[in-house]
Amino acid sequence: MSTTATYTVKGMTCGHCVASVKDEVSGITGVSDVVVELESGAVTVTSESPLDIATVQAAVEEAGYELVS
Amino acid sequence: MSTTATYTVKGMTCGHCVASVKDEVSGITGVSDVVVELESGAVTVTSESPLDIATVQAAVEEAGYELVS
Repeated sequence: MSTTATYTVKGMTCGHCVASVKDEVSGITGVSDVVVELESGAVTVTSESPLDIATVQAAVEEAGYELVS
Repeated sequence: MSTTATYTVKGMTCGHCVASVKDEVSGITGVSDVVVELESGAVTVTSESPLDIATVQAAVEEAGYELVS
C-alpha cells in the first residue's frame, strides 16, 4: 500500500527549483514518487506510509523553499 | 592582459539559473572570471582576449537562456 499527499511550496521560479525540491523530498525515507508543479507550487508525494509534515517541511527548506501548506 | 565584456542574458529567474549560466560561460576557453547579476541579467566576462559573440551566445543557450545583447 502507499499513501499520497499534496503540499504547497512557495518560492519556486524555474525548472532548477523544481528539480531541487524533487531531489530533497525524494530523499525522505519511504518516498517512492514526487511530482512537482512549478506554476501552482503543488508537490505531490507518494510514500509507503503517511509522512510527518515536519519531515517534508525540513526537506523543502533544505532545498531553499518554503512549505506553506 | 585581459579583456572584460558585459552581456545581457534573458530568462534567469533564480540562483540556479545564475549558476548554470556562470558554469557554461566559465567553460569557454580563455575565460578567467564570470560575474552574473540575476536582477539585471548582466553577465560580465573576463577573458585573455576578446570573445566571439557567437561563442558566448552558444554557451548561454546551452545553459538554457537567451543572449539579448
